[in-house]
Amino acid sequence: MKQLLRINMKTQTIVNEIVGQEFAHFGGRSLIAKILNQEMDAKADPLGPENKLIVCPGLFVDTVAPCSGRISVGGKSPLTKTIKESNAGGTMAKRMAALDLHGLVLEDQPQQDEWFVLVVDASGVEFLSAQPYLGMNNYQLGEELRKEMGSEISIASVGLAGERRYLNASIQFTDLDGHPSRSAARGGLGALMGSKGVKAIVFKDVKKAAWEYADKDRFAAANKAFGKALLAHPFSGQGLPALGTALLVNVTNEMGILPTHNFSKGRWEHAEETSGERIAELQAERGGKMSHICERGCLVRCSQVYNDKNGKYLTSGFEYETIGLFGANCGIRDIDAIAQLDRLCDDLGVDTMDTACALSLCMEAGLIEFGDAEGALRLGQEILDGTELGRVLGNGTEATGQHLGSTRIPTVKGQAMAAYDPRGLKGLGVTYATSPMGADHTAGNSIGDHSLDGTCKDGQVDLSRNLQVIMTVFDTLGMCIFSGMCCEEPEALGHLIDMAAGKFGGDWDVDRLMGLGVQSLILEKQFNKAAGFTEKDDRLPEFMYTEVLESVDASFDISDEELAKTLSFGAPE
Amino acid sequence: MKQLLRINMKTQTIVNEIVGQEFAHFGGRSLIAKILNQEMDAKADPLGPENKLIVCPGLFVDTVAPCSGRISVGGKSPLTKTIKESNAGGTMAKRMAALDLHGLVLEDQPQQDEWFVLVVDASGVEFLSAQPYLGMNNYQLGEELRKEMGSEISIASVGLAGERRYLNASIQFTDLDGHPSRSAARGGLGALMGSKGVKAIVFKDVKKAAWEYADKDRFAAANKAFGKALLAHPFSGQGLPALGTALLVNVTNEMGILPTHNFSKGRWEHAEETSGERIAELQAERGGKMSHICERGCLVRCSQVYNDKNGKYLTSGFEYETIGLFGANCGIRDIDAIAQLDRLCDDLGVDTMDTACALSLCMEAGLIEFGDAEGALRLGQEILDGTELGRVLGNGTEATGQHLGSTRIPTVKGQAMAAYDPRGLKGLGVTYATSPMGADHTAGNSIGDHSLDGTCKDGQVDLSRNLQVIMTVFDTLGMCIFSGMCCEEPEALGHLIDMAAGKFGGDWDVDRLMGLGVQSLILEKQFNKAAGFTEKDDRLPEFMYTEVLESVDASFDISDEELAKTLSFGAPE
Repeated sequence: MKQLLRINMKTQTIVNEIVGQEFAHFGGRSLIAKILNQEMDAKADPLGPENKLIVCPGLFVDTVAPCSGRISVGGKSPLTKTIKESNAGGTMAKRMAALDLHGLVLEDQPQQDEWFVLVVDASGVEFLSAQPYLGMNNYQLGEELRKEMGSEISIASVGLAGERRYLNASIQFTDLDGHPSRSAARGGLGALMGSKGVKAIVFKDVKKAAWEYADKDRFAAANKAFGKALLAHPFSGQGLPALGTALLVNVTNEMGILPTHNFSKGRWEHAEETSGERIAELQAERGGKMSHICERGCLVRCSQVYNDKNGKYLTSGFEYETIGLFGANCGIRDIDAIAQLDRLCDDLGVDTMDTACALSLCMEAGLIEFGDAEGALRLGQEILDGTELGRVLGNGTEATGQHLGSTRIPTVKGQAMAAYDPRGLKGLGVTYATSPMGADHTAGNSIGDHSLDGTCKDGQVDLSRNLQVIMTVFDTLGMCIFSGMCCEEPEALGHLIDMAAGKFGGDWDVDRLMGLGVQSLILEKQFNKAAGFTEKDDRLPEFMYTEVLESVDASFDISDEELAKTLSFGAPE
Repeated sequence: MKQLLRINMKTQTIVNEIVGQEFAHFGGRSLIAKILNQEMDAKADPLGPENKLIVCPGLFVDTVAPCSGRISVGGKSPLTKTIKESNAGGTMAKRMAALDLHGLVLEDQPQQDEWFVLVVDASGVEFLSAQPYLGMNNYQLGEELRKEMGSEISIASVGLAGERRYLNASIQFTDLDGHPSRSAARGGLGALMGSKGVKAIVFKDVKKAAWEYADKDRFAAANKAFGKALLAHPFSGQGLPALGTALLVNVTNEMGILPTHNFSKGRWEHAEETSGERIAELQAERGGKMSHICERGCLVRCSQVYNDKNGKYLTSGFEYETIGLFGANCGIRDIDAIAQLDRLCDDLGVDTMDTACALSLCMEAGLIEFGDAEGALRLGQEILDGTELGRVLGNGTEATGQHLGSTRIPTVKGQAMAAYDPRGLKGLGVTYATSPMGADHTAGNSIGDHSLDGTCKDGQVDLSRNLQVIMTVFDTLGMCIFSGMCCEEPEALGHLIDMAAGKFGGDWDVDRLMGLGVQSLILEKQFNKAAGFTEKDDRLPEFMYTEVLESVDASFDISDEELAKTLSFGAPE
């Protein structure tokens, strides 16, 4: 029987709730939407006692489906004030599945300055004082916790950013090597964890529970076929394992949508120096590793181990969006400096995208020059040191832009865009504008679409809607969105439908599978509406409409009326 | 013929528009609402080219009505993102009336770093380069401009805060002594003026235009009777001239609603040391002045000249709200230190209320102690110096609270409350929550009401509605709201109605007069709705609901549903 573990941080007590039938098809992202809608006043303060931090795997976590070990965290976002789900790889989801846990729900908050490490195993939850660990960042914290509790633990933690409740604080999860390189980075959920007085959640290694299937053979057969389709897809089967997501640097630069100098240009003459090809070349020399996996059962292997000049581990989970935004968008050519910034963000526990866009705003305002890697690292150090400017930067792009009086702030609902200029990739632009989560490329990225010209507006609303639905399905199944790319082929999608039937039983078709995403999107919009958001919030920042991006000769021209149609599904079923 | 002067700051050209019949009954606050609704995209960036800065007197400016020289400024607020009108005393409104100007509308914006001083007289508008004046604060700027242009000019200007586009920047107007002590302080309109590249607007002294009345004798008779009623009212006729608005310090302290230590208490043992009585005593010794007027035609005389220990002018227009929030709410007992902070705010050009509440948040967060006057002045200096923390403080209470991770931020729609705790003055609490302008005591203050117990919730919504309507009428007539206090007597209100008939002609009754306010409130709500605001934004911060204010044994308990009824007038007539 799956259970929901409710942890009251005020009283330090737990309640173990058997998950009823009504939650049967809610997992990961959609479980978060369901619980928050049912239990929380959407108008409550994100950092107050009424907010809840939910940590949960997806519906396929207790299966052998490929890449089904994503861990979702969610709550009302301190950054965007919307509902928020952010998910990461790493080892925790499968630990929860081994304990038959459908999710953790952290409720209320302790006295100020009371901090805990929560240790979970088959016997329950232990509340350890976090006093010895306060002030530590994620890398050091992991080492100390492993010294205490052994190397086999799985950790979710916050660094100084979460302790200080920076609005851009992330929650970092350990990967198979114990590195806190997997980020639930977006929306400031690390600040929410900090507001609950939780420095770390530790799962011990436990004996796996027996996983139930309605029809195990049907699942297994479909799963095998699905894995084959995944590996046959050129992006997830070839591009990503070879070069990681950084393979996109040259692609987006070629397309003219690589944000450069705070989204003022779409092409950068130094892109090649920060490309996936360059990283692969460097890491071959330095003994790093491409085709690295961040969780067991991953077939895509887009992660890597990035070693520094001396062949020493520097970072991993070093993504295209980080590279594009610290690289072209800040004008930093030195890939090692970018890797250092990535490491710093993981360690301190902040989102790289919102940090990088904040730095590019500092550059545009003249605090440092575009391209000044040392200056960027110095500003990173200020975030770490918690200087006054550092605290502003730690609150993300929107706070920084406001602080600097900028009118070119690349955010939607207070969250920075990823490294794709929406003027040349309008399907993603529609997603940025309309996703209930704020500007978020993983909510429905049209970069892989070849049916439409990204600079033209026709068809982009439909494209974004379809992508947002299927991405929400994957976020609900707890499968990595890269495993979903093959679903553009009806045959692969058919295998996935068969897997659902094999796991859950009953009749499944495309509509029912997509319904898993639609029901979540409807609930998320419902929450945001109750929190006071309207379709007026579903648009890009003004400068995207008024400034032409020269590299694609386009501005963003999808009207508010069209945007408003994107996620209109009618009433929930 | 009244004219609207449209000033395009991009092209530095002007258009003189004859005001048509449709604007006949729109002036001051309601003119701002009318123009912004008709001409501006409510979703536009407040600091971008689409926003407009409107400067205009009210409908009674070209009459001899008492206190009819208020000057309104408005636009989309950089601080609250709502529609905003803020008005001040001083000499400018009557200068505009002398030129038959219904208003100035500043449109578009010049190249970055292009700054102007606009000089207006009967021959038109001159665009002077502001280069020699950049970096000056308001007191020095006024002296320099008077050296150039003579002592008879009337000035609206921004200090360093407006130049830097601090979100809490004010526009300061000169009083009869040439001091920039009259503040259109709220909502960051100084940042909007800065974004238009305007350092100062200067009106030269010109020959008065002939003022038109439909029935001059009727107006004169009613006006005389109205003035008599005003002077017979105990508050506007006796209390205010004797002690200024600071007379309220002892009153609110007695009532238990004087915000103390960031709204954590409602009574302060040192209130007496900062009271109006104490100021009057000190100024009698120091050669200062009570019963000072801020504009010609003022019968209320609530201003004062506050001299320092050496008998030298320090500040004027030193209001209760400033004293209550720097005093009790920051715990500062030294009235001279509070006067220095008032001077600093006027000089730099920031709102005292949002600044004081930002400082009290710093105190609550432990940056300095409550009561630390030197520390407060040091933080004030940081705002002036533009340090990183200073810039945060310059962006007001909401930005400061966010920066410090506070969950006790006393704002509505991003604007700080005034020095009245809404838990013991619930009529004003309803106004804070529902005014289209954000938390604003001048939008409808129930402090003078004796019909209800301020700690009880019954009847407060109706009380606030009535107050908001009549205050909007006065903001539309361009009359000081203190001249409206006598209108609680039906006889005095009758005189005002007669004045409207005498000025405009036609039949006037209570409903038609109140309609002047209602039409403005409807337009303001319409603007905010188009900007994305909903009734979800019409509530107080969470801690006002959850924390009991001991001095009155009450929390704020008016439901969102009741609040939503406050300004529901139905469709415009």
